[in-house]
Amino acid sequence: MTAESDLFVHPQGLCESDEVGPGTRIWAFAHVMKGAVVGRDCNISDHVFIETGARIGDRVTIKNQVMVWRGVEIGDDVFVGPGACFMNDAYPRSPRMALPAVAARYSDETRWLLRTRVETGATLGAGCLVLPAVRIGAYAMIAAGAVLTRDVPAHALVAGVPARRVGLVCRCGARLVAIRGAVRLCPRCDEKYDERAGG
Amino acid sequence: MTAESDLFVHPQGLCESDEVGPGTRIWAFAHVMKGAVVGRDCNISDHVFIETGARIGDRVTIKNQVMVWRGVEIGDDVFVGPGACFMNDAYPRSPRMALPAVAARYSDETRWLLRTRVETGATLGAGCLVLPAVRIGAYAMIAAGAVLTRDVPAHALVAGVPARRVGLVCRCGARLVAIRGAVRLCPRCDEKYDERAGG
Amino acid sequence: MTAESDLFVHPQGLCESDEVGPGTRIWAFAHVMKGAVVGRDCNISDHVFIETGARIGDRVTIKNQVMVWRGVEIGDDVFVGPGACFMNDAYPRSPRMALPAVAARYSDETRWLLRTRVETGATLGAGCLVLPAVRIGAYAMIAAGAVLTRDVPAHALVAGVPARRVGLVCRCGARLVAIRGAVRLCPRCDEKYDERAGG
Repeated sequence: MTAESDLFVHPQGLCESDEVGPGTRIWAFAHVMKGAVVGRDCNISDHVFIETGARIGDRVTIKNQVMVWRGVEIGDDVFVGPGACFMNDAYPRSPRMALPAVAARYSDETRWLLRTRVETGATLGAGCLVLPAVRIGAYAMIAAGAVLTRDVPAHALVAGVPARRVGLVCRCGARLVAIRGAVRLCPRCDEKYDERAGG
Repeated sequence: MTAESDLFVHPQGLCESDEVGPGTRIWAFAHVMKGAVVGRDCNISDHVFIETGARIGDRVTIKNQVMVWRGVEIGDDVFVGPGACFMNDAYPRSPRMALPAVAARYSDETRWLLRTRVETGATLGAGCLVLPAVRIGAYAMIAAGAVLTRDVPAHALVAGVPARRVGLVCRCGARLVAIRGAVRLCPRCDEKYDERAGG
Repeated sequence: MTAESDLFVHPQGLCESDEVGPGTRIWAFAHVMKGAVVGRDCNISDHVFIETGARIGDRVTIKNQVMVWRGVEIGDDVFVGPGACFMNDAYPRSPRMALPAVAARYSDETRWLLRTRVETGATLGAGCLVLPAVRIGAYAMIAAGAVLTRDVPAHALVAGVPARRVGLVCRCGARLVAIRGAVRLCPRCDEKYDERAGG
């Protein structure tokens, strides 16, 4: 998957993975761990952290300081805004504490690891928090600062703490306007959507 | 503007701009990009990111992990708390996706770039989020974790998600107390304010 | 306290303190300042910042990007989630501004520095914000994105903006279930708690 000649890593960036696609750029103080998978033509901004076991598709934009953990899978064409944060453990404790129940839990990944999936073309706004095991549908848009506690349908615009649906967006990101019944129109690119068809 | 003899850059910091004023200190793992303008006697803390096109005044304190994008202008004497985050795009998508409407939008900065302005002496609390195109008035104070969706008047104290006005503060940062009619007093430095005069 | 042979610092990490315990690991782009105290067998993740005057116990897990300031004391066995942020100043202004009241305030640490304490075994969720002078009780659990404005009792689960109590958790992190009167049971490790006894 890697064409090293075509992969750019900033002199102050750190790429330990050999599964990063061609055309991808990794910027200063970013850290891509061994075993992390990143597709082609991505932009991995300053101070980003991508953990072993994370999977990221093609043409993805990961803005500054985003942390992508083991168990998080990000589809193609996704935008993850600055400071957005994923999680993979619903009730974390310090694995170092001397408590048998905690030691047992962290001795086996299947007991604590929850998986999160972001579908094609979605946008995660700045500083949003994605609780573990949430699924974000294709082309959904998460407002800045939203705390996601439930799955988000395709094309939904969600906002707030906890996040609730406040509208619908086009593939291009513009808000859809209602024209008749369940039919929605994108004012920017004239694409039509039928809400009953689920996007 | 730059007096290199007088500018401190930590050995692990990265300063590519030649428009940083004397007396300014840039700390470890911070990154000031080429073309970013930073005034004199500022403190740019660890893990801060200042993008090409950002403008920062004199005597500004930028705490750890703050990200200042192109289109953001920060006046003199401002305090930006740790992890506070600006934005410059209201409906972002990954510019790399193969969708003509998205490609067109990102081919021309005037179609997506929104400008944010922070006036003299304001304080942005830890982890607050500033939606694009917001203007923060002089000496305003934004509470930790607030999400700013609207302009903030001078001297206002705002808090919450979305942020609402909950009080007024003095230039020194202390909360003003009502003494009579629209007259407010600072209990720390005895300065008087008339709310009708707008600060 | 330090056994340098036993302390791991990543080649891209920065440890200036000589008060870090054996078995502790400090990862890439993390910065532990001179005079910061960190116990033994801790994990200090990427992009963490620990300031002079901060104190951290043993077996503590500090996830990525956490900032621990002077005045913050963290007990043993604590888990601090990614992007969680402490504070130590209730009404900050840029100390560099030319205003006598501000200069006087920052000339003397006792005028502005507030102290925060996290007790043994507590968990701070991802992206939570801890206002200055808050005390977090032993084994308490703070939900992701919570904004803590008040003290949190031992074993309490708190969530929201501002954070409110929504349940109780066991030392192991599982939510307690009510069985009779004030008696609570941990479904994972069968430990019993009497709420009247305060944990």
